Amino acid sequence: MAVGLGPLPAMHPVPGIRMGTTSAGIKTPGRRDLVVFELCEGSRVAAVFTRNRFCAAPVTVAREHLGAAAPRYLLVNTGNANAGTGQRGLEDARDCCARLAELTGVSPQAVLPFSTGVIGEPLPSQRILDALPSALESLADSGWSEAASGILTTDTLPKGASRRVRVGEADITLTGIAKGAGMIRPDMATMLAFIATDAELPQELLDRALTEAVRYSFNRITVDGDTSTNDACVLIATGKVSVTDEVAYRAFVDALTDICTQLAQAVVRDGEGATRFITVQVENGASQAECEAVAYTIAHSPLVKTAAFAGDPNWGRILAAIGRAGIDDLDVSAVRIWLDDYLIAEQGGRADGYLEAEAAARMNRDEVTVRVDLARGQSAAVVWTTDFSYDYVRINAEYRS
Amino acid sequence: MAVGLGPLPAMHPVPGIRMGTTSAGIKTPGRRDLVVFELCEGSRVAAVFTRNRFCAAPVTVAREHLGAAAPRYLLVNTGNANAGTGQRGLEDARDCCARLAELTGVSPQAVLPFSTGVIGEPLPSQRILDALPSALESLADSGWSEAASGILTTDTLPKGASRRVRVGEADITLTGIAKGAGMIRPDMATMLAFIATDAELPQELLDRALTEAVRYSFNRITVDGDTSTNDACVLIATGKVSVTDEVAYRAFVDALTDICTQLAQAVVRDGEGATRFITVQVENGASQAECEAVAYTIAHSPLVKTAAFAGDPNWGRILAAIGRAGIDDLDVSAVRIWLDDYLIAEQGGRADGYLEAEAAARMNRDEVTVRVDLARGQSAAVVWTTDFSYDYVRINAEYRS
Repeated sequence: MAVGLGPLPAMHPVPGIRMGTTSAGIKTPGRRDLVVFELCEGSRVAAVFTRNRFCAAPVTVAREHLGAAAPRYLLVNTGNANAGTGQRGLEDARDCCARLAELTGVSPQAVLPFSTGVIGEPLPSQRILDALPSALESLADSGWSEAASGILTTDTLPKGASRRVRVGEADITLTGIAKGAGMIRPDMATMLAFIATDAELPQELLDRALTEAVRYSFNRITVDGDTSTNDACVLIATGKVSVTDEVAYRAFVDALTDICTQLAQAVVRDGEGATRFITVQVENGASQAECEAVAYTIAHSPLVKTAAFAGDPNWGRILAAIGRAGIDDLDVSAVRIWLDDYLIAEQGGRADGYLEAEAAARMNRDEVTVRVDLARGQSAAVVWTTDFSYDYVRINAEYRS
Repeated sequence: MAVGLGPLPAMHPVPGIRMGTTSAGIKTPGRRDLVVFELCEGSRVAAVFTRNRFCAAPVTVAREHLGAAAPRYLLVNTGNANAGTGQRGLEDARDCCARLAELTGVSPQAVLPFSTGVIGEPLPSQRILDALPSALESLADSGWSEAASGILTTDTLPKGASRRVRVGEADITLTGIAKGAGMIRPDMATMLAFIATDAELPQELLDRALTEAVRYSFNRITVDGDTSTNDACVLIATGKVSVTDEVAYRAFVDALTDICTQLAQAVVRDGEGATRFITVQVENGASQAECEAVAYTIAHSPLVKTAAFAGDPNWGRILAAIGRAGIDDLDVSAVRIWLDDYLIAEQGGRADGYLEAEAAARMNRDEVTVRVDLARGQSAAVVWTTDFSYDYVRINAEYRS
């Protein structure tokens, strides 16, 4: 029941990048669950990973390999996260990389592994090894849509974004896919997201561009506040089109941020049990940190989220969330709260002339903006989240993540 | 659907304390919703209040009055929190205190007001004013049980604790009541809780005793992480039995902590939609603060809570919660997790010899203990919480708190 999430847009191929998708039978027989990305020689890769201390085996191995060799292949499976699997999990991840390396004639360190799905079950690595030839056979630069489907877990729809943009004097392509659904509160990283471009940037700028783009996109979403053990966001640059100067770099970062924001919002729109897409916009704070704290306190409040599910414009719960967000010297009488363009709270209480029907009409929309004015500075922050529904409970009571 | 919460125990009267309970028709006609406590002359009062910056009008007024006069009456209404009501809310709270003072011949500052219920609706103060004489007529030192029912909101059962205890060379009585249910994550305070004793302590020791007792009881529970705007915990000492020395004081604090813990656990057992009572016990941390952080991260995780609802011993979600609790240098391979006495996770993965059926049998009990050994120090912390059920969503989607 994704909110405002349409079919995949036109996914522009990125010259130098091919994807192969197949079914390894990891969880559900016949379901596409294995994706191989092939990166042309000379590609550069930037990546950010989960900061959860219990990171999954593939995260550990991918970090190691990134430091050791230029990546040529990404190997992604769904259905099993290979997390909480101890020493054996590391061996399984390395075995899969080694086999793909053997089949393609690269070094094992040139393969980066990624897994998503159930935590704590041993990776069925033999099934992955057996399916690798079939994945390689299907490699094609038009493989984005199939790959977008092949990485999903409890997602109801594939998520992709793609655009061509003028950067300096040339056009570049940026195309990306992501998966999400639950355990979503990225922390300096994200769900699984893979973005490729034909741009050419020095490694340092590529890393910086990804960090900047992630900060205001994947790091601004939350479904349930639970940071996954497997989050990763990868940016591949094949180096065909040179991004030469600072102006071109800014245009590149803007386009990358746009792609990341589209993907991040798609993850929230397809959040587990989501019936509404909620933008929490906090303005005029003394610092960005306090704006983020207020925005996340609202976005994580089970009471605000269940009220949103009910279409109840319960400004008292929003106000209570702001009040416990850790700003000790907050002047509560100066705080104002809007639902979309409708002022609902001011001077520590309900807004003058407040009409329940007007507020309820806004809260009952598929897309709701909660805007908070802290009236104590110039900083701002935006966070995107979902409501909290019966289906969230059902999905997570039934699904063994 | 309270978990393991029986009928009220025998509620020993506390000499010098009388309660009157009546129906003011604040919300549901005929329901008891107004309670007056009468404190004999010479009583001392200690109180802790919510740290939510959006505190309710009665919290502001009670703080003011506490600083101005010795309390002689507490005036408690349910059905309306008088929170988010701005200037009018303050006037309403003061009007109610003034009227009760007039009827009883004390100064208005000798009355402390407390409210719980819906946020953001004007207090129907006329109904309270009209009902005060009836509440005063019913004053009796045996009124604890009626008072326990008269302060409830979405609670399904009244909550009380009472004991007689030898302190030094005399017996004292401690009797208390509390209400809770939702918006429960007390912060240096609690839901509404009223505890009385006939002990005599200097004000400074009384304050210290309450702070100590609350720290390990009301401040260690959470239902949904939402700190209420109206939390208050009041301790009344009528001063009949002298607590003379340090040994007697320790005995007093121990008994008070026991009463507070019983009440706090009762609030969790009757948490909104609760089907399980969960004790999260974190041991061998480097500091109490980090143990608390880990315990609360587990206790607040929607994924852990929905798994508990399903009776799913999903150690991967517990492990993921520990990993994001903010301990940067955590050695994840040393962490061990038990469900009750059954080891479920060690060395970054599932415990050796783990049997799903054994773990599920523990998670399916009404009372579950999640025990975490951080293996990095000598500190510990315990937090009590509930699972996250369909009923939590139903109650909070339907109820306008």
